[in-house]
Amino acid sequence: MPSCPVCRSEWPAKSEKAEAEVIQVAVLGYGYWGPNLARNIAANRDCHLVAIADPRIDRADEAQRMFPGIEICRQSTDLLGRANIDAFVIATPPGSHFELALAALRQGKHVLVEKPLAGSSEQAECLIAEAERRGLALMVDHTFVYTGALRKIYELVREPDFGQVYYYDSIRVNAGIFQQDFNILWDLAVHDLSIIDSLLDQPIRAVSATGMAHFHGVENMAYMTLFFDGPLIAHVGVNWLAPVKVRQTLIGGSRKMILYDDVEPSEKVKVYDKGIEVNGAPESVRRYRGGHSTGAMSVPKLDTTEALRHVIAEFVRSAATGVRPLTDGQAGLRVIRTLEAATESIRLRGSPVEIGNRVLAG
Amino acid sequence: MPSCPVCRSEWPAKSEKAEAEVIQVAVLGYGYWGPNLARNIAANRDCHLVAIADPRIDRADEAQRMFPGIEICRQSTDLLGRANIDAFVIATPPGSHFELALAALRQGKHVLVEKPLAGSSEQAECLIAEAERRGLALMVDHTFVYTGALRKIYELVREPDFGQVYYYDSIRVNAGIFQQDFNILWDLAVHDLSIIDSLLDQPIRAVSATGMAHFHGVENMAYMTLFFDGPLIAHVGVNWLAPVKVRQTLIGGSRKMILYDDVEPSEKVKVYDKGIEVNGAPESVRRYRGGHSTGAMSVPKLDTTEALRHVIAEFVRSAATGVRPLTDGQAGLRVIRTLEAATESIRLRGSPVEIGNRVLAG
Amino acid sequence: MPSCPVCRSEWPAKSEKAEAEVIQVAVLGYGYWGPNLARNIAANRDCHLVAIADPRIDRADEAQRMFPGIEICRQSTDLLGRANIDAFVIATPPGSHFELALAALRQGKHVLVEKPLAGSSEQAECLIAEAERRGLALMVDHTFVYTGALRKIYELVREPDFGQVYYYDSIRVNAGIFQQDFNILWDLAVHDLSIIDSLLDQPIRAVSATGMAHFHGVENMAYMTLFFDGPLIAHVGVNWLAPVKVRQTLIGGSRKMILYDDVEPSEKVKVYDKGIEVNGAPESVRRYRGGHSTGAMSVPKLDTTEALRHVIAEFVRSAATGVRPLTDGQAGLRVIRTLEAATESIRLRGSPVEIGNRVLAG
Amino acid sequence: MPSCPVCRSEWPAKSEKAEAEVIQVAVLGYGYWGPNLARNIAANRDCHLVAIADPRIDRADEAQRMFPGIEICRQSTDLLGRANIDAFVIATPPGSHFELALAALRQGKHVLVEKPLAGSSEQAECLIAEAERRGLALMVDHTFVYTGALRKIYELVREPDFGQVYYYDSIRVNAGIFQQDFNILWDLAVHDLSIIDSLLDQPIRAVSATGMAHFHGVENMAYMTLFFDGPLIAHVGVNWLAPVKVRQTLIGGSRKMILYDDVEPSEKVKVYDKGIEVNGAPESVRRYRGGHSTGAMSVPKLDTTEALRHVIAEFVRSAATGVRPLTDGQAGLRVIRTLEAATESIRLRGSPVEIGNRVLAG
Repeated sequence: MPSCPVCRSEWPAKSEKAEAEVIQVAVLGYGYWGPNLARNIAANRDCHLVAIADPRIDRADEAQRMFPGIEICRQSTDLLGRANIDAFVIATPPGSHFELALAALRQGKHVLVEKPLAGSSEQAECLIAEAERRGLALMVDHTFVYTGALRKIYELVREPDFGQVYYYDSIRVNAGIFQQDFNILWDLAVHDLSIIDSLLDQPIRAVSATGMAHFHGVENMAYMTLFFDGPLIAHVGVNWLAPVKVRQTLIGGSRKMILYDDVEPSEKVKVYDKGIEVNGAPESVRRYRGGHSTGAMSVPKLDTTEALRHVIAEFVRSAATGVRPLTDGQAGLRVIRTLEAATESIRLRGSPVEIGNRVLAG
Repeated sequence: MPSCPVCRSEWPAKSEKAEAEVIQVAVLGYGYWGPNLARNIAANRDCHLVAIADPRIDRADEAQRMFPGIEICRQSTDLLGRANIDAFVIATPPGSHFELALAALRQGKHVLVEKPLAGSSEQAECLIAEAERRGLALMVDHTFVYTGALRKIYELVREPDFGQVYYYDSIRVNAGIFQQDFNILWDLAVHDLSIIDSLLDQPIRAVSATGMAHFHGVENMAYMTLFFDGPLIAHVGVNWLAPVKVRQTLIGGSRKMILYDDVEPSEKVKVYDKGIEVNGAPESVRRYRGGHSTGAMSVPKLDTTEALRHVIAEFVRSAATGVRPLTDGQAGLRVIRTLEAATESIRLRGSPVEIGNRVLAG
Repeated sequence: MPSCPVCRSEWPAKSEKAEAEVIQVAVLGYGYWGPNLARNIAANRDCHLVAIADPRIDRADEAQRMFPGIEICRQSTDLLGRANIDAFVIATPPGSHFELALAALRQGKHVLVEKPLAGSSEQAECLIAEAERRGLALMVDHTFVYTGALRKIYELVREPDFGQVYYYDSIRVNAGIFQQDFNILWDLAVHDLSIIDSLLDQPIRAVSATGMAHFHGVENMAYMTLFFDGPLIAHVGVNWLAPVKVRQTLIGGSRKMILYDDVEPSEKVKVYDKGIEVNGAPESVRRYRGGHSTGAMSVPKLDTTEALRHVIAEFVRSAATGVRPLTDGQAGLRVIRTLEAATESIRLRGSPVEIGNRVLAG
Repeated sequence: MPSCPVCRSEWPAKSEKAEAEVIQVAVLGYGYWGPNLARNIAANRDCHLVAIADPRIDRADEAQRMFPGIEICRQSTDLLGRANIDAFVIATPPGSHFELALAALRQGKHVLVEKPLAGSSEQAECLIAEAERRGLALMVDHTFVYTGALRKIYELVREPDFGQVYYYDSIRVNAGIFQQDFNILWDLAVHDLSIIDSLLDQPIRAVSATGMAHFHGVENMAYMTLFFDGPLIAHVGVNWLAPVKVRQTLIGGSRKMILYDDVEPSEKVKVYDKGIEVNGAPESVRRYRGGHSTGAMSVPKLDTTEALRHVIAEFVRSAATGVRPLTDGQAGLRVIRTLEAATESIRLRGSPVEIGNRVLAG
């Protein structure tokens, strides 16, 4: 147990778990997201950060500076079989997710994968099957699901006075961050699909999508309408070529509505008393006219804990206890199936494509 | 000529036109937009506001208070044949535009119609033919085209350093103003279609649209992707059931981009030095990554004259000189053809519908 | 009674007052604010707009266009003795308020004066005495007091759960509108002083003010701290030389706080559950640390009626019934006394100047 | 030299300095700001983070987790004499800055102190003298001076087309973070004073300040006007008891003006072409009226490097080379002298207090 070399007092508090129970974690990939994952793993009392791998020398050097006490490696695959590692967090480019995750599972390691879980629904099904067979945790980092904003929105939408959910409408555009491997839906719309997957209790039936590849490659902007069984509709617009970063989501209910603006520093979630109820007569709709342009609004208090702290906690809990995580392999698979259907619809200039929702036998 | 009853000084300035040359104008409909039209007609030196008609007694009373010297009437049709009226401005509900406009044209009157010009492309073609035959001015009030913001945007987009236009992306949502006669595209998307019609020099080839009617009637929210010949794409999202009013348009070019926010009180148009140019190699795109998240932006000075002042001036000029107005019947017809195709696409859940661009023989 | 010349139906509704009871009003000054006053007088059913005076020919012409049925005059003084005028609304430059108001009162007319009521406390006292002596209505147009935002704020501040009022802090800066006659306090701070006068139930005891005249003349920017008897403090910053228009007021209470932003188009008033209560122990204050950076906020629904409509209604009611208006001559006088003390404090580079609150014997 | 234990490749790049030249740094205090300092020290290639001290066990534990390889201690004073430490970064509560800094200097260590440098001008003078005598670096962490926003503002204000600087006007309010030891000026106004000290080339001659202590202790809100020799004026408003965090600064010049909003996520600095030049005739000022309410604005591209990275680099450079840092002890002293004068002026309810600018003989 460590102690202050000067004053000899000991820490941390003795209530901590025995070393043996603590999950040993390695991070693969130290680019954009890896440092955030590593920092949150280091800060979690129920796991230890034991290694980081990245092939680029500047990133390996940066990792060594920030985490002077741990092992830094440049070859991810060399770490996979290590006996002192229980779990891997994979934050490499999307094209390598499937191969690394599968190899880690086959070595008996728990796996947390950055979104998207894999490059196709077949790959996702393969990972799910492998994890099931071996009794390992398989989780996808659908980060937004764990934010204070979304957890509050889940509560709000489920309250009776929100009424029926009418629509989800989101704009998510970036200023100049391009990816080469997958079209923009796989980079940005994946966030909305993961939110919709956990927020709305209805399966997506079909998707109509349009988009444009302005350069020789994948689509750099796209629009997607999701159809459900009832009068619910969802729409997502994404764009890598916008002049500003926008993260705006409207969620309309029959009695209340939510405006969620993730770029807003302090008032991210606004709740409006502006729903509309239909009770048969068309007159009720007509009375609505002009009725709520200056209605009451409130801003709830949000948990401001970094979402990744919850992601890591959920993963570590799942690895330690075997309890299925909130954003498990199935959640990752459902999102990928919608991405595949939307990509097909773009090819058809908006014609609707149905989504097969066959459940994978676990 | 009027003179001050107390001090006997005369006004207005003598340079004004002879009374005979001044266009005599009547306003039909004094609901939401009529008072604004009437006020701008009253303020224009080249025309006279001579009558206002509205069937509702409270509106007739309001008109009488605000314009104590002019004739107020409750039956629009009774004014149509009046010899002392040269031109009609029609601001009645959309369903009556065609009938009133046609009747006015047949009485030999110039006509300015609120958007949309008519309820179908056949009706619009009929009005165009009637106006052509009689040599009368037929204009549609596509107000946005005349705003200081849009006139500045036209300049900016046409400057060589804007580069190629890549996309037009607009959100136009309202808080609770419902119309019963037509779906929301005819109410709100018509603004974007009129802007696109005058801003982009390319014909719309096809449209994919989706939408939802949450109540027993027309669609109250809708999304529309417009396809052109080249790598240009346009998208418009409209919603009557939003908690807030949003008017946000992004226009992306290969060298610059514009953010136009009409709700913003003072900085409506922002121009970003954030375009991207492709010169063959995919590397150029990759270098773009992260390159412009904090780039330079500028806000041009806008003409803040009320747009309706320009609308009235354009109409009066057209009526007096026979010069075709900027937003003539053909512009109104092109917009309506796109609205019809989009309405059909919504029925097909997003399947693309081609737009017939047959030119009406004038 | 007027009737439609075509369909012969009559309006307005018969419930209206007999013509004899309706107050006949003239507007003096048709510059920036006069047209708004005239429009609201025309729209009020309990008064008639009968005349407008302005010495500039372009303004007289504009008035004639907008109000074709009424008398337009270029010499204010010629209207003062007219028997068919009961009341005057004075919207001329501030330097002429006193002279015109006094002359009107001496002719037995009711008077509504734009802010400030007069150019000195002696002048204001003179007007008050004259109005009292003759039993006439004397009102000052402290417009902000009549806005939906302020009327809601009055309610909020008076509710028990607002707690004790700790401070009023306002920024009111303009982009380039200079006045020559009086320093900026008389132009902009007068709004805050009129709000403070009606909102806070405590007399101002002293004022410390600083400012700067960057050009050869009156101060074009100034700051003012107001002292009261208790632990209440108010501060107002005004500036003619700002790049943007700002209207931001914070009102802090021991249990709630208000942010009032008058430039915000829709959410002008925000109420925060962020007060702090002291219950003896300094620990309670320390616990407050970090406690409310993301607390709950709500936006109340406001009456969006134009404030001037209420101003005119209040004036007409006072003229008709003799009931003292909310912003009477005494309110105008209290504001002017603070302006005079602040102007003196600026000369003393911030040294506090006490405010004589001797009550004028009515 | 470290190498990857798996793949045996070496890093970092060989160009790095010999170990002997690298400054060894310890951080005292790991509360709010200490973790940020430690992280930036760890990331700097020209120094080594060797130790962190904090008396609280939870913070010591947190430091140990984040920096597993370095020494963690709970008693700051025990580290002061360590031979393997060249420099101390002091981020303890303000009341202990002087004592710790003086002790470190007496042990021959370079010192970087969080703002404020000390608790009085006498203490600051003592630290300056001690550092001078021993030839050690003494620097105060006036962080804002090192931000990309401020470094851009310095450039802009010094460009000829900015014109003469007329005013600096800042609002800096927090939502509920109280300090007990010093009044709010020492906590928040110190930022503006450090900016003014480096931005404006004129000495502050006098200060008029007002404030209020709503609880049993130091002032929790305050306003401060600074007087200079010419027609320049500065004003700072600070408040711990606001419902929201505001960081807004206006800097007015005779030809351009700047709006600096540090809470704004992306467009922190806006430059307006809205200055005013006086050329003798008062008419020029009058023409300005209404002239710039919708003028052109631009947003410059800012360096987004974390300011603390520059602070640490400046400190390490000063410690290694002996070159005086930008925010040296004298800068810290000038700020404290103004804080002392302002505190005295508050006691006098705004009466102006002159600032002694005697230069300390180095």
